[in-house]
Amino acid sequence: MARTQLTLIQLDNYGPWTVTPHPRPEVDLQTLQSRLYADLSQLIGRDGGYVFYTRFDNMIAVTNALDMTAHERIQESVRNRYPVTISLTTGVGDRPDAALSDATERLQAAGSAQDSDRTEILGGEVVDPSAAGVQVAHFDVNSATEQYTDQLSAFTVYQQINRGYVALAGHMLEAHGALTFFVGGDNVISVTPDLTHEDFRDAVEHVQETADIELRVGVGSGATATEAGMGAKEALEHCRESGEQVALGAEPAAH
Amino acid sequence: MARTQLTLIQLDNYGPWTVTPHPRPEVDLQTLQSRLYADLSQLIGRDGGYVFYTRFDNMIAVTNALDMTAHERIQESVRNRYPVTISLTTGVGDRPDAALSDATERLQAAGSAQDSDRTEILGGEVVDPSAAGVQVAHFDVNSATEQYTDQLSAFTVYQQINRGYVALAGHMLEAHGALTFFVGGDNVISVTPDLTHEDFRDAVEHVQETADIELRVGVGSGATATEAGMGAKEALEHCRESGEQVALGAEPAAH
Amino acid sequence: MARTQLTLIQLDNYGPWTVTPHPRPEVDLQTLQSRLYADLSQLIGRDGGYVFYTRFDNMIAVTNALDMTAHERIQESVRNRYPVTISLTTGVGDRPDAALSDATERLQAAGSAQDSDRTEILGGEVVDPSAAGVQVAHFDVNSATEQYTDQLSAFTVYQQINRGYVALAGHMLEAHGALTFFVGGDNVISVTPDLTHEDFRDAVEHVQETADIELRVGVGSGATATEAGMGAKEALEHCRESGEQVALGAEPAAH
Amino acid sequence: MARTQLTLIQLDNYGPWTVTPHPRPEVDLQTLQSRLYADLSQLIGRDGGYVFYTRFDNMIAVTNALDMTAHERIQESVRNRYPVTISLTTGVGDRPDAALSDATERLQAAGSAQDSDRTEILGGEVVDPSAAGVQVAHFDVNSATEQYTDQLSAFTVYQQINRGYVALAGHMLEAHGALTFFVGGDNVISVTPDLTHEDFRDAVEHVQETADIELRVGVGSGATATEAGMGAKEALEHCRESGEQVALGAEPAAH
Repeated sequence: MARTQLTLIQLDNYGPWTVTPHPRPEVDLQTLQSRLYADLSQLIGRDGGYVFYTRFDNMIAVTNALDMTAHERIQESVRNRYPVTISLTTGVGDRPDAALSDATERLQAAGSAQDSDRTEILGGEVVDPSAAGVQVAHFDVNSATEQYTDQLSAFTVYQQINRGYVALAGHMLEAHGALTFFVGGDNVISVTPDLTHEDFRDAVEHVQETADIELRVGVGSGATATEAGMGAKEALEHCRESGEQVALGAEPAAH
Repeated sequence: MARTQLTLIQLDNYGPWTVTPHPRPEVDLQTLQSRLYADLSQLIGRDGGYVFYTRFDNMIAVTNALDMTAHERIQESVRNRYPVTISLTTGVGDRPDAALSDATERLQAAGSAQDSDRTEILGGEVVDPSAAGVQVAHFDVNSATEQYTDQLSAFTVYQQINRGYVALAGHMLEAHGALTFFVGGDNVISVTPDLTHEDFRDAVEHVQETADIELRVGVGSGATATEAGMGAKEALEHCRESGEQVALGAEPAAH
Repeated sequence: MARTQLTLIQLDNYGPWTVTPHPRPEVDLQTLQSRLYADLSQLIGRDGGYVFYTRFDNMIAVTNALDMTAHERIQESVRNRYPVTISLTTGVGDRPDAALSDATERLQAAGSAQDSDRTEILGGEVVDPSAAGVQVAHFDVNSATEQYTDQLSAFTVYQQINRGYVALAGHMLEAHGALTFFVGGDNVISVTPDLTHEDFRDAVEHVQETADIELRVGVGSGATATEAGMGAKEALEHCRESGEQVALGAEPAAH
Repeated sequence: MARTQLTLIQLDNYGPWTVTPHPRPEVDLQTLQSRLYADLSQLIGRDGGYVFYTRFDNMIAVTNALDMTAHERIQESVRNRYPVTISLTTGVGDRPDAALSDATERLQAAGSAQDSDRTEILGGEVVDPSAAGVQVAHFDVNSATEQYTDQLSAFTVYQQINRGYVALAGHMLEAHGALTFFVGGDNVISVTPDLTHEDFRDAVEHVQETADIELRVGVGSGATATEAGMGAKEALEHCRESGEQVALGAEPAAH
């Protein structure tokens, strides 16, 4: 039964920091942002969570199985190793978008993202991991290498992939309250409520019709994002072998 | 005089590697990709270049002032520290999209991105750094924190920012052959041919009309991406202070 | 009751790799080694373990509370992100040196460190975390900044600190079977069996007499290295404030 | 003609930071220190320099070919990405120890390592890279894997290697003013004035007699540490093949 815990990760007062006292070199900012993302991936991933970089100064994580103490340790670890601090607020919901709205509102209630006094906010609802699970769908583009990467200019391919991502993300949000993220290459991960084979077939058809991009999708579920996501990857491998567009992994035996 | 050298960075045979012999955990792939991007930012940034992560398995860099020997050292450094290798091909042009097309075609001519025998390709045209320069435009969203980050759910903000990015990137490519990249927060960087104040005003208006998002832009030029980009950042600071929508930095004295 | 689980971490066939087909640049090797150490610190640290870099191609970790599955995940994570692989073998003992000998013998029995067929060895005894604990002593040099860093040439200071380390490490090994590691600055951490206040006073006096270096030491114990080590740090802070040479932290209430 | 530029890298007020307001977790400190070292290796290595980690809060670098502007950029890059800042002072000399003494005295004159007002000191003499070079000797232990790593307990091996290092470093400093550093595995790098084949034979014999450890050494020279160090590595490979104890690489043609 999907009931997702989402964490909003926001760098405290980051925008002003990047230009104080003068604009900092872009290369250093890019390095800082991508390494912080990598570290958060590792820190949250150890307990089965997924982090998505989205805007880098605001990141979204699936954190079923991480309680508030685990969040606090992550907050401390960033403080000890970076020149910036992070706020972490959580929300829980049957629909991921509702969970994230709760997390966001909690942070907004504490002050502005550019309020220098609002630092290291921590709080929010956490889910009982024994009573809840996550559903993850892993999409990729059929024949992406043959049709795109090996044929078109690299920027055009990027635009095409992004076009497909936008069409899919919009559909999944509006139809189901799912949150959808590009994760590199031609791969897109959607964190969903409990959806059916038919729901995913509709999503794939929607992208085919509106963006003319042919997707495949493997779906998994589990107690954590990692467990669900690994099931989704295996189901997607099944698609690659069988030629099916949609494959739902077997429910893990024990959770 | 803008004449841009672009480098296409492609991970060799990366897709198959991620699922051999079984799908590798997403957390490890995300960590690998973002750290490799950070390292390339540093390696290329030391000589004044910019790297944009785009799809992570294919990245695009502005490399005026990096000759083929510098590219070869970067290729070697990645080989010595990562489980994957990279191919690097370059192109040069007055329009960045033409330069990238040349770089891409060179790599495609050497084989498929998923050809296990096509590894560590290196080559392409390099520009004479004394005879060429780069123009960089740094856009951000007016009142992004007040109107978006502090008001809407984090995923909605991300979608809005991405919508603005897509509108801008499409316009800049079609109208000018410029390549445009999201770089975190509400920041977008465009690598352009020589464009005028009016060209940028039109771009800002286009995004206002088609996506209802209000941008500002600072523009800089210089011998390298770093030089041009720092000029753009300073010009954007000028916009923030003066309220202007478009500011062009002074041409650096000597290049 | 101290009963320590040690893990030997050995890079597989690393020496030959560093010179094949030609010697790899030292800068890349140093970067690889120190980043791998940082990653292992994080991976093992999340479960309360400590890693010491020692020779970098062979590292020693205190891993009470990490079972063999946790070791296997760490092994996999390194394989997915580095050009080298690691072997991990464990041992358990009341004396840390005995535990490490067991771990080492297990790895040696599987083949040579430079046997290209002996990769990713995993195995060894693990301790029941509910029945065992760790004792950690954290030493530093009295007035190190005033007497050394601010007075002598940086290399001379390094030699002096190393001289003190060698004297201490030899004494702790011979007298108690403890394993002692330099951890930066003027800090040394010793992983010990259950030792008394008097044992530590003797150790401090031994270093004073043989190397003319004045140490202080805080001692902690706990279920994991992190728990014991944090107790040791707090006890050492107590020494700094009170002027005592040796301070034993209170036993944590529940473990 | 060896004339070495050394840089002392000191973390500003680091000791107090590690315990303010409470002792920070050792795992985070180890991660911070080793990643900062890795980054400095890359930043300084790009211009041909070598960094040695020594105490981690004080590091020593060979920086021929890095002028004060390059040092300033490195200082800025650390400030932009870490919670700590660094001071960088340089010295130049025919004997490396004299160069480092100059660098150290310059920093000490600016204030104490634990003076919270003494931050980001930058300055010192730089060498004309066209008129000076570096000599580097790369030592390793004969049959280290067979005689040590595959035979003895990992901590004993570490002690043995450290014993050999201490004997060598002391001899090289006293006899020649050379600075000698352990760099992992069984490898030791010495930064030397112009020394002869006989000087190195004496050093190897000294360690054989005083510590009963059999070393080999390759020696290189060049305009930068990287150039000299690569020559030393190749000369050491020659020792491995020929069985010679000492090999001096050919002087590079042009510098």
